[in-house]
Amino acid sequence: MTVTSTHSEIASFTPYPIKHLPLNLRVGSESLFIVWDNGHESEYHYLWLRDNCHCSECIATLTREQVFEICDVPETIRPLEAYFSEDNRLVIKWDYADHISQYHPGWLYSHCYSESAREAKQWRAKVWDKEAINQTLPTNTYLNILQSDQHLLTWLRDLRDYGIALVTDVDCAPNTLIKVAHRISFIRETNFGTIFNVQAKADANSAAYTDLRLPLHTDLPTRELQPGLQFLHCLINDAEGGESILVDGFKIAEHMREYYPDEFASLSSIPMSFYNKDQHSDYRFRGTAIVVDENHQIVEVRLANFLRGPIDVPAHQTLALYKAYRRFIQLTREERFQFFHRLNSGELIVFDNRRVLHARNAFDLKTGSRHLQGCYIDRDELLSRIRVLERDTLG
Amino acid sequence: MTVTSTHSEIASFTPYPIKHLPLNLRVGSESLFIVWDNGHESEYHYLWLRDNCHCSECIATLTREQVFEICDVPETIRPLEAYFSEDNRLVIKWDYADHISQYHPGWLYSHCYSESAREAKQWRAKVWDKEAINQTLPTNTYLNILQSDQHLLTWLRDLRDYGIALVTDVDCAPNTLIKVAHRISFIRETNFGTIFNVQAKADANSAAYTDLRLPLHTDLPTRELQPGLQFLHCLINDAEGGESILVDGFKIAEHMREYYPDEFASLSSIPMSFYNKDQHSDYRFRGTAIVVDENHQIVEVRLANFLRGPIDVPAHQTLALYKAYRRFIQLTREERFQFFHRLNSGELIVFDNRRVLHARNAFDLKTGSRHLQGCYIDRDELLSRIRVLERDTLG
Repeated sequence: MTVTSTHSEIASFTPYPIKHLPLNLRVGSESLFIVWDNGHESEYHYLWLRDNCHCSECIATLTREQVFEICDVPETIRPLEAYFSEDNRLVIKWDYADHISQYHPGWLYSHCYSESAREAKQWRAKVWDKEAINQTLPTNTYLNILQSDQHLLTWLRDLRDYGIALVTDVDCAPNTLIKVAHRISFIRETNFGTIFNVQAKADANSAAYTDLRLPLHTDLPTRELQPGLQFLHCLINDAEGGESILVDGFKIAEHMREYYPDEFASLSSIPMSFYNKDQHSDYRFRGTAIVVDENHQIVEVRLANFLRGPIDVPAHQTLALYKAYRRFIQLTREERFQFFHRLNSGELIVFDNRRVLHARNAFDLKTGSRHLQGCYIDRDELLSRIRVLERDTLG
Repeated sequence: MTVTSTHSEIASFTPYPIKHLPLNLRVGSESLFIVWDNGHESEYHYLWLRDNCHCSECIATLTREQVFEICDVPETIRPLEAYFSEDNRLVIKWDYADHISQYHPGWLYSHCYSESAREAKQWRAKVWDKEAINQTLPTNTYLNILQSDQHLLTWLRDLRDYGIALVTDVDCAPNTLIKVAHRISFIRETNFGTIFNVQAKADANSAAYTDLRLPLHTDLPTRELQPGLQFLHCLINDAEGGESILVDGFKIAEHMREYYPDEFASLSSIPMSFYNKDQHSDYRFRGTAIVVDENHQIVEVRLANFLRGPIDVPAHQTLALYKAYRRFIQLTREERFQFFHRLNSGELIVFDNRRVLHARNAFDLKTGSRHLQGCYIDRDELLSRIRVLERDTLG
């Protein structure tokens, strides 16, 4: 049970500990069936098995990338022989080109694509309203995040699942947020730079850079890929006002799906237009305010009233879209969904900008100053970082 | 006919020259109808019109962003009065909050959302095979691209439409490609850096950094948003082999849709998995190899055999997906679709990495050296840059 996988067995850097042993196999017409010691049955198609051969002819040793291409064998490829080796590997001798493939049982079990196996691997967001997030806001300290991979992993998993997490006791020197960001990956540059300073300024090209109230929104919905994580580090916040309001867009979308199904359907199927207003850039994107994946899970929210372009859909859909959009905005305004937090200096809040809407109350610079620094990192980087950190845990 | 729009009329930096004048209007129950001097009839819903009011109460003067929110007026808002002013503006006095809106006729005509107007605005790719691209490959010189906005605009439009364009006479000093890239925007960083050097190296973490043949692929299909433009600048190419092969993935997809409709349907609806193999990153993405938009247009191709993860779809879809994938790869191997080009030093090729598949023959470092530099810029940046350059042409 402690067989450690090596490259000759698995073309991956992820370890696949053996949790179950194969008991028997059955050779079908298009696929092979394995029953495991927990009673689970897996079906593996021959093309799939041939495609996933881990031998050094099929996988380049240096890069661990596949060299073999599946269209270079007949579609009808079948095993001449299939059996389990003494150390529980599945061994197949193919009827084409005398090729032999071996499959590590830990890898094989964990790549079962039965309905139940696929269901079990499905990630689910932990959605929240005001009450829930006030009890569970994931929080850790700057030093823990910087110094401990284990703390970092826990915090990142929470960030992935709740879409929001706080760091406290952060150094208030400018650009300190880079140190936290780099614990995940490089920063995503935008037309606002890599690090943006949220301060009122005279030549504001975005409402963010004024002292005005900002309604609930996601940042950069004008971009095909909205930035994933948004970091906001508070260096100073002495001015009156300027409180942050955060709302879980997934919660609002789920609420809508339950109570206003027609409006949910409109908002997840009829695209809206988003344009920025700037002398030097003209980003435009057309996409639905709610994005649902193949498993009907809500995976994205896209919304900023002040960055909308004119609605541009067939006339018969126009009013349905307005009705749905108005409902969504009205729901986000309900206090029961709002996490209200005044960012203090030394706090860094990170949230999934494709899920959590954020707003800011107007502030009054006559009463003090306010300086936040922000940056973005994409979801890809967060998920990759979690997987790499998890390799140690699994290995 | 030469009325120039100002901010008080249009909350946009894009000018909207007046091409047609409104002849008459009709007030319906939910929308207003305008007939223009070319006979075209436009329908504008009242909610849409109220939403698009350009007055300084509704739009912040400094940022040109909307302050007004459509859910703050009744869904049943109607005009008390609607007429054309002497300078052909549509003027509406609303039945709520004594608000008055004015609409510039150039802006209004150009935002008509009738079926024919929407159809006319639809972008269409110019797809190509070997013969077509050998005749039409968009090409311009380094100096023209650097010095002339007009040359740049033409070249960028071609790049958008053909998905490929060449720059010649480029300085062969390292990092020169940055100068060309910055004519569009900032560079997209990835785990391979901002500028990557395509040279064989001992500790390769990608097939790109070996001397091996690379099959036709898009770069970074493991990322949710594949990089849009790929730049490849050839500094030196003296080694034998190493020719570039480029294939218009949209052409292959269209060919498939015409001749193998079932396989096209599979490849555009059943997701594949893409994983990278690396010690320090573990990117994974699940998405269809062909992406089709709401208008059935092919908008993206995602494909790299060496970066695929195990197929992970319901058992009944597995073979259909393999069949379709094999067909696609086989088609890309047909010479009639392949643009074959040996990059010479001083050439910079740019292509849409979400459309054009690229491959490289193996090369032999015993016969000489080979050094390319590459970088990425997203599609958003290309399209934004084109729009900003077009403002001058339209203004």
